[in-house]
Amino acid sequence: MLERLQKNGVYKAIFERRDVREFNSKPLPEEKLKSILLAGHHAPSVGFMQPWDFILIESQEVKDSLAKACQKEILALAIHYEDEKKTKFLSLKLEGLKEAPVTICVTCDPTRGGGHVLGRNSIPETDILSVACCIQNMWLAAYAEGVAMGWVSFYKKTDVREILHIPPHIEPVALISLGFTDNYPQAPILEKENWEKRVQINNLIHYDNWNSSKHNLFK
Amino acid sequence: MLERLQKNGVYKAIFERRDVREFNSKPLPEEKLKSILLAGHHAPSVGFMQPWDFILIESQEVKDSLAKACQKEILALAIHYEDEKKTKFLSLKLEGLKEAPVTICVTCDPTRGGGHVLGRNSIPETDILSVACCIQNMWLAAYAEGVAMGWVSFYKKTDVREILHIPPHIEPVALISLGFTDNYPQAPILEKENWEKRVQINNLIHYDNWNSSKHNLFK
Repeated sequence: MLERLQKNGVYKAIFERRDVREFNSKPLPEEKLKSILLAGHHAPSVGFMQPWDFILIESQEVKDSLAKACQKEILALAIHYEDEKKTKFLSLKLEGLKEAPVTICVTCDPTRGGGHVLGRNSIPETDILSVACCIQNMWLAAYAEGVAMGWVSFYKKTDVREILHIPPHIEPVALISLGFTDNYPQAPILEKENWEKRVQINNLIHYDNWNSSKHNLFK
Repeated sequence: MLERLQKNGVYKAIFERRDVREFNSKPLPEEKLKSILLAGHHAPSVGFMQPWDFILIESQEVKDSLAKACQKEILALAIHYEDEKKTKFLSLKLEGLKEAPVTICVTCDPTRGGGHVLGRNSIPETDILSVACCIQNMWLAAYAEGVAMGWVSFYKKTDVREILHIPPHIEPVALISLGFTDNYPQAPILEKENWEKRVQINNLIHYDNWNSSKHNLFK
């Protein structure tokens, strides 16, 4: 059981953690990096398979290559938006890969634990879901450490595999930038930018089956 | 920034949270359920799409149907194990759906936010990864509330869709059992049962590319 203030820390991290795309030049202390990695490694995983690996990227050359791959993807995606939405999309700062002192490519090895991982046999994608739990742990630990983190998902996996020499059977699940920021967002960036709104939670709750959603659990 | 004790709470939740399959009959207070749901809803999501829904299951009849579907899947999976591994597998308690006062089916709606969700256009599975982040938030909030939680992934999705009347385009990502337990595990169940070991974290860390993993960051 947690004490009152410990419990309060868990909720503060959950509610105030933000996705960050702007980093200053302050380096990331090794102790903070280690705490964040340990938190990720203690995530739950299907059949305790722990399918994650962490590629720590500090070389400026490699960071620049990743940023270039992301920028290409952002330009390609912009083509699918039109008019104002396109201008808006291109004005958003979507990655901070060049500036962040450390970027971590978090990967998923679907072969770890052998061919019949308990639980993964029924639902194969539970391996990447486990990696997502690992990333969320890292995010909350980063918040606890006063570290800014951004999850970048604008890239072609094939580019990231090539730049980081990742074998074909390993999934590059996310590029995670870590560092410090002068502007830690108070609200989600896409909410502040009027891109999307937070959904009313009552609209997401159903009772005993999908079609029954009459109650208002949250007043 | 978090105070020392708040930060300590975040790590305690991350390191001591466990997957629970045994529940006692104590009901789950509504306030705790609401706190856990709100924590889930404040997870990060790709393009702020918030693709999750929560089907709250308290009807014993529905719980029994879900438990039956899971039991069928467990028997089917057991066929793939042999000898001692099979005996071991069948001896594990893999779900507590009948006993837990509340089970939540957490789903993913890949159509939420329209056809060109920012970030999901590049990597479509970022929608279910967002749902996994939501579930991990729920798990940590449950821990903070002194509530036991188990993530069950032994089922055929088609059975769960049928029992809960879930439309074909919606993914039933997880069955989450919530309640109280008399035996909160100190270590992961599969570690205690000698099914799998925790991997040494140094073996999961690479530098600048997949092939370079010489250092020992953790002594």
